[in-house]
Amino acid sequence: MNVLVINCGSSSLKYQLINMANEEVLAVGLAERIAIDGSRIKHETIGKEKVVIEQPMKNHKDAIEMVLAAIVNEEYGAIKDMSEISAVGHRVVHGGEKFSGSVLITDEVKKVLEECSDLAPLHNPPNLMGINACQEILPNVPMVGVFDTAFHQTMPKSSYLYALPYELYEKYGIRRYGFHGTSHKYVSQRAAEILGKNIEDLKIVTCHLGNGASVAAVDGGKSIDTTMGFTPLEGLMMGTRCGDIDPAILPFLMEKEGLDAAGLSDLMNKKSGILGLTGISSDFRDIEDAAAAGDERAILGLETYCKKIKKYIGAYMAEMGGLDAIVFTAGIGENGAEIRRDICKGMEALGIEIDEEKNNVRGKERIVSTDNSKVKILLVPTNEELMIARDTVALVK
Amino acid sequence: MNVLVINCGSSSLKYQLINMANEEVLAVGLAERIAIDGSRIKHETIGKEKVVIEQPMKNHKDAIEMVLAAIVNEEYGAIKDMSEISAVGHRVVHGGEKFSGSVLITDEVKKVLEECSDLAPLHNPPNLMGINACQEILPNVPMVGVFDTAFHQTMPKSSYLYALPYELYEKYGIRRYGFHGTSHKYVSQRAAEILGKNIEDLKIVTCHLGNGASVAAVDGGKSIDTTMGFTPLEGLMMGTRCGDIDPAILPFLMEKEGLDAAGLSDLMNKKSGILGLTGISSDFRDIEDAAAAGDERAILGLETYCKKIKKYIGAYMAEMGGLDAIVFTAGIGENGAEIRRDICKGMEALGIEIDEEKNNVRGKERIVSTDNSKVKILLVPTNEELMIARDTVALVK
Repeated sequence: MNVLVINCGSSSLKYQLINMANEEVLAVGLAERIAIDGSRIKHETIGKEKVVIEQPMKNHKDAIEMVLAAIVNEEYGAIKDMSEISAVGHRVVHGGEKFSGSVLITDEVKKVLEECSDLAPLHNPPNLMGINACQEILPNVPMVGVFDTAFHQTMPKSSYLYALPYELYEKYGIRRYGFHGTSHKYVSQRAAEILGKNIEDLKIVTCHLGNGASVAAVDGGKSIDTTMGFTPLEGLMMGTRCGDIDPAILPFLMEKEGLDAAGLSDLMNKKSGILGLTGISSDFRDIEDAAAAGDERAILGLETYCKKIKKYIGAYMAEMGGLDAIVFTAGIGENGAEIRRDICKGMEALGIEIDEEKNNVRGKERIVSTDNSKVKILLVPTNEELMIARDTVALVK
Repeated sequence: MNVLVINCGSSSLKYQLINMANEEVLAVGLAERIAIDGSRIKHETIGKEKVVIEQPMKNHKDAIEMVLAAIVNEEYGAIKDMSEISAVGHRVVHGGEKFSGSVLITDEVKKVLEECSDLAPLHNPPNLMGINACQEILPNVPMVGVFDTAFHQTMPKSSYLYALPYELYEKYGIRRYGFHGTSHKYVSQRAAEILGKNIEDLKIVTCHLGNGASVAAVDGGKSIDTTMGFTPLEGLMMGTRCGDIDPAILPFLMEKEGLDAAGLSDLMNKKSGILGLTGISSDFRDIEDAAAAGDERAILGLETYCKKIKKYIGAYMAEMGGLDAIVFTAGIGENGAEIRRDICKGMEALGIEIDEEKNNVRGKERIVSTDNSKVKILLVPTNEELMIARDTVALVK
């Protein structure tokens, strides 16, 4: 059976069509600039040439229609007919406390997702738009929602509660939720397979280092802690997000700079991170180039970035009372060999020993620790789409 | 020589008179409710009976005058004459980036402290009031300022910079400063002495757990990282302070609850921490009693509190690339045997093994780890007053 995987942003829509008989990707693409001038679809059916289809899309429904047209296109499509799509899996960012696993989408589920929109105002509404658009066009195809937060629902209260008045948790659901759950789950499971171990016997720290970035403590296959919290701002320093700061900085800045809620959010989410600290770019490749050229702020930015991740590895090792493996994934985790090395180096006394030669690789599944390293270090390219498709199959069956 | 040590709060003044020939405390006391109805001094000359002197104090100068009168009182005083006070050591909370050690107080120094008041609006102004009052009454006695921030000035940039726009650091000095420095310095030095090791060879995590609480990474005798940041709010959960939270919670609360800067500060500093989470008390003894009686929120509060400290121990172990000793100090650190145990337990695989029997002690210098524990665990009562007096003597000589 073929599963269409959809990941809707506010003005974009990523998709993959996967043949679940052999987990082979048939087509992959991206609709960009939805409801903005210059909208287009970049589509690739595996084995055929990539195409770019430029055509106005006034909303997500238009985008879905164009995506489906591309998928069944005689020339550059992957299948003959929409009836060959057996199910659709949707990535949904925020499932709140309601969903600890994936679910078949019903009217009831959509209602809960709307309620969660308050917690993820930038993410859940476009996710819902994508679901509604798909249901209109493919009314008889079952849809599944796969949540970024679900994997972290196993966290104990002592990991997810903040030391704020408890009423704020009861009234608004202010707690740590964690994100990138599909990725942390996938790479921790793959790591266990690669190591030939039962995941129930492993203590793993997974580092999802992309434009957004988070670290998770996966103990016996279950997330027991993670760095992102109430929102995807907390924890690591990211491309443009500040991560952890002294929260007292905010009232200070409100008084000094006259910032309001939107101004603070903008500052912390869009003007901070490696961009804010270095003043150079939010793209780590630019920072690495500048650092190689001797730029002091770029060097400092990378040091600060790596130190923060190193500290969370240590924190989770302490929390789990041991550590068997560290897994790196996502853009920077998969491609940044120097960053992986700098995170791990200096922890040899803790049994963490990276092999610089093995580590000199990009985007390939590989153990990159030395043979003697007590803690295994792995590079595992993430595959959230496959996880979404697998969950979709499991629920539809 | 006798040194008077002064610690001024906004409405209180703690003092000790110490004979530095043998580091013996001669007198100790507290002026309370300065400029408030019902002001009084609790004074004790060691070896004599405690007295409470109730008398109006309209400002800090009145308080200093009363303290000195008590110290030289014929009946319950400690010395005959003010001329027996050779120097005064003042605790100052915030030295900004200007002071990496203690200093003789000059007009120049006072000017810098005024500039730092912006960074510690609740603390530096009363510290300055105490200095000015002392100088008026004891114009010929040298005064020394000892800073809570000074010990942490050895932190590298990658530890003290936030991933915020760099301009905010340049414009307002927004960075991590760290506090409780005098305490972290004292207990790390004592730990090295107790262990019979050179501090330059030790990697120590010091846990100052009082009403305010912070953890520091002391590598070779130097602070390289600490949990408190721009203000004493960041890091651990405390009596009424929230410590680390997702900073995105603040703009969320501004919109939902209409809180302004003062409202946010009040919420985070006075209504959060163990008080906010449990709804019971800011006093850990009350929480322990409630937990013993089975109160679920109290049990959860203690778990959350201990987990956070455990995670910082791990984080600093990773940052230093090893760990030789963990030191507990201050009210909870010295007296909370169960809390020390719960922080350490579960980390045996990392070489951290507490001895429950040895640990069953309050407020005494003692090694509380097992003989086999690779990482030594120590209880070291802090003595900030002695450190202030020592620095005062060193600078006055």
